[in-house]
Amino acid sequence: MTFDPSTLSYDSNGLIPCIAQDHRSGEVLMLAWMNAEAVARTLQTRKVTYWSRSRRAFWVKGETSGYVQRLVDLRLDCDRDCLLAVVDQSGPACHTNRRSCFYTSVIEGDEVELMAPEG
Amino acid sequence: MTFDPSTLSYDSNGLIPCIAQDHRSGEVLMLAWMNAEAVARTLQTRKVTYWSRSRRAFWVKGETSGYVQRLVDLRLDCDRDCLLAVVDQSGPACHTNRRSCFYTSVIEGDEVELMAPEG
Repeated sequence: MTFDPSTLSYDSNGLIPCIAQDHRSGEVLMLAWMNAEAVARTLQTRKVTYWSRSRRAFWVKGETSGYVQRLVDLRLDCDRDCLLAVVDQSGPACHTNRRSCFYTSVIEGDEVELMAPEG
Repeated sequence: MTFDPSTLSYDSNGLIPCIAQDHRSGEVLMLAWMNAEAVARTLQTRKVTYWSRSRRAFWVKGETSGYVQRLVDLRLDCDRDCLLAVVDQSGPACHTNRRSCFYTSVIEGDEVELMAPEG
């Protein structure tokens, strides 16, 4: 079955959430959003490309920082309303310079920082 | 820092996406949505509890199927607008009876099924 980005389920803003997961460690790195064109560009270029909701623009991950996400595998879920990008992440994925955006854990009611910024 | 669910960033419907990841395999199982009360219930009961957008009701994962998600760790991202639930998943997470909802991969432009239903 040929894949057509327009057959995914987008929200009322035309967006679909995309989880990025490190292909080696399995670590969940971040979640960001794509529109149909970002999905198509990601597949064409193999550079993971999101839609920045704040900047209202395409966001080729790492274009500024150099910390690109090379697409290893793009998966969709059963409802076709969420994507999982398995990626080769160069450097930290998070803008705080941490490997993953999910660096805060709720432990016994408190917020605990699990990892420090790199470098 | 004491964690308060109301300090998370919710969308215009009062919801936040939550990724469920298997604590042993690291596999990404599913993505669903929580409101502040679902976050609080998840932390209190350690049974992952979503908000069903279609049924407009709390959804204790596995309450009907028996395939519960026991919370191992709840994490939040840098923007406080996405959650990662690290879980102990009993049985398949997907309603199609597959281990993960992300069982379809886009390979060279085609949709390819990566895993079959269990049992």
